[in-house]
Amino acid sequence: MQKEILVVGTLGFDTVTNCRGRVDMVLGGSASYASVAASYFARTHLISIVGTDFSNGHFAPFKKRGVDTQGVKVEEGKTFFWAAEYDKDFKNAYTKVTDLNVFANFKPRILSSHKKCKYAFLGNIDPEIQLSLIKQMDGAKLITCDTMNYWINSNKKAVKKVIKNTDILFVNESEARMLTGEYNLIKAGKDILKLGAKHVIIKLGPNGAMFISPLGMAQLPPFLVENIYDTTGAGDTFGGAFTGYLASLPKWNTLYAIKNAMAVGGVMASFGIESFSINKLLELSQTKINSRLNKYKNGLRF
Amino acid sequence: MQKEILVVGTLGFDTVTNCRGRVDMVLGGSASYASVAASYFARTHLISIVGTDFSNGHFAPFKKRGVDTQGVKVEEGKTFFWAAEYDKDFKNAYTKVTDLNVFANFKPRILSSHKKCKYAFLGNIDPEIQLSLIKQMDGAKLITCDTMNYWINSNKKAVKKVIKNTDILFVNESEARMLTGEYNLIKAGKDILKLGAKHVIIKLGPNGAMFISPLGMAQLPPFLVENIYDTTGAGDTFGGAFTGYLASLPKWNTLYAIKNAMAVGGVMASFGIESFSINKLLELSQTKINSRLNKYKNGLRF
Repeated sequence: MQKEILVVGTLGFDTVTNCRGRVDMVLGGSASYASVAASYFARTHLISIVGTDFSNGHFAPFKKRGVDTQGVKVEEGKTFFWAAEYDKDFKNAYTKVTDLNVFANFKPRILSSHKKCKYAFLGNIDPEIQLSLIKQMDGAKLITCDTMNYWINSNKKAVKKVIKNTDILFVNESEARMLTGEYNLIKAGKDILKLGAKHVIIKLGPNGAMFISPLGMAQLPPFLVENIYDTTGAGDTFGGAFTGYLASLPKWNTLYAIKNAMAVGGVMASFGIESFSINKLLELSQTKINSRLNKYKNGLRF
Repeated sequence: MQKEILVVGTLGFDTVTNCRGRVDMVLGGSASYASVAASYFARTHLISIVGTDFSNGHFAPFKKRGVDTQGVKVEEGKTFFWAAEYDKDFKNAYTKVTDLNVFANFKPRILSSHKKCKYAFLGNIDPEIQLSLIKQMDGAKLITCDTMNYWINSNKKAVKKVIKNTDILFVNESEARMLTGEYNLIKAGKDILKLGAKHVIIKLGPNGAMFISPLGMAQLPPFLVENIYDTTGAGDTFGGAFTGYLASLPKWNTLYAIKNAMAVGGVMASFGIESFSINKLLELSQTKINSRLNKYKNGLRF
C-alpha cells in the first residue's frame, strides 16, 4: 500500500538571474520542489496558499505528478514572489525581492483527507505555523522540518520548540553554527541533539550532507553534477525526496534507512539543479532515478 | 616485494596554538607527516634538510617507522621553523613565523640508494626544486606533487611546469580556484587537466576529497572525527599515505585504486588530527588502520 505524505511550504513565483541566464516568474517555493520530489516515493498531499494569479496552468505540473492540491488555498491577491541573483557558479544567492503577498495570511489547516498522512515534510516557514501543524498531526510516524537563519534570528524560542517536536531537523552549515555557536559541525549537530532534536541532517550544499543522531553519524558526498543550471530549491528537493523515501519504507529510523534516504535526497537534488524551476524534476521516472541512484551507490563501493 | 617510495619536503619544528592548547617546537613539516604516513604502506626514503639542532632524538621517530633518513642532509645552522595559531575549531591557521633557516639552501639530490624508488610524493616546496627532482627520477611509475598558494602567486610558470610533469597533483579548494579562476570545483579540476595535469586531487578539508581525471570523477567524504587536536599536516598525511598505498599496488592508475587510496589517505589523516605533531601517526598498526578503513568503507555501503 502506498504511503501518504504531507508537504507544507511556499508555492510561489521566482525570478532568478544566474550565470546560465534569467527566468521570470517561474514556479518556485519550497513546497513546489519538495512535493514534486516526494511524489516519486509516496502519494503526496500539498498544503500551501496562492493568489488568484496562480492559474490552472500553474497547478498542472502538480496534477501531472499526482500531487493532491486540495490543501492549497486560493486567496484573493497575489502569490508569494521571490527574486534573486546568484553570483558566478552559485556561490551565493542575493535576494532582491521577497513579497509574501497572500502567504502572509497562511494559517494552514490539515483537512480530513490528510488524516491518513502519517509522514510530513514541513518546509521552511514560520516556526509557529510548523508547531501548529505538528499539533494537528497527532499520531504521525515521521515529521521532518526545515528552518532557516531568518527564523533562528527572529524567533529562536519557537525554533527551539520545533526542534524538540520534530523527528528530523534539516539545517544548513551556517544555521547549525548559528543555532549552537559551534563551528565544528559534529559538535554543532550534537548540540542540536541536546536542544531536544531526535535526529539532525546538516545540508552541506556542494559537499553533500551529514546526519547526526543517537543512531550514529554519517557524511555522504553529493552526486557530482557538472552542468548546474540553478541551485534554487536544492535543499527543499533533498528534504522532500528524503522524507518521501523514508515514508515508503516499513521502518525509517535506522542508520541504514537514513543513509539511503540521504542518497535519494542527494540524487533528486542533483536532477533538480540541472534545470531552472522544477522542470527537470517533472520529467523523471523510476528508471532514471534508480539508474542515477545505482551509479551513486556503486561509486561508493570500492 | 615491498615497493619503495621517496618522500621529499620539509622537516621542521612547529609551535602551534589552538583550542586544545599549545605545543612548542614539536616535530613538523610536510615530510614528517607524509613519510610517517607512507611508511605503513611502502618502504619510505626521506629527502630533506635539517640544522644541527635536529638531534638523534628527532630522528628516532623516523627510525622507529623504518623510514630511511640517509637523504636528510644535516647542515650547520637551524632547522626550518613554523609558528601558527588556529582560530576556534580549526577554521583558519594564522602563520606567525616562518623561518626557512637551512631549508633556504635545500638543493635535493637523489642518492644512488634512491634509484630503486619508482614512486614519490613531493611535498609543497619550491616548484623549481620539484621539477629538478622529477628530472632526476627518470623512469618513475608515479610522482605525486603538492603545491600551495604561495608558489602559485610567486612562480605560476614553474607550478604550471610541475603540473605538466607530475602524475597526480594535490591542491586544496582555494588553490584550485586560484590556478583556474573557476569557483566550481569540477570545472576547476577539469581546467587543471587542460593545463596538462594527468590527474588531480582537490583536498576538501573537513569535507573529504575530490578526484578529477580522464579515469573519471569521485568525491569521498571524510572519516568523521570528533576529537580533533591539531589539523596541521593533515594534507601531507593524506598525500603521503595516498601515494604510499598506490605504490603498494600492482597497478595504481584505475579509478578503483584511486578511490581506495583516497580512503586510505582520509583515514590516515583522521588519525593524524587526533594528536599534536605526528604522535598519533607513530603509534598505529596495520590492524588499527584496517579496522578504521573497514569502518569507513562499510559506512559507505548501504
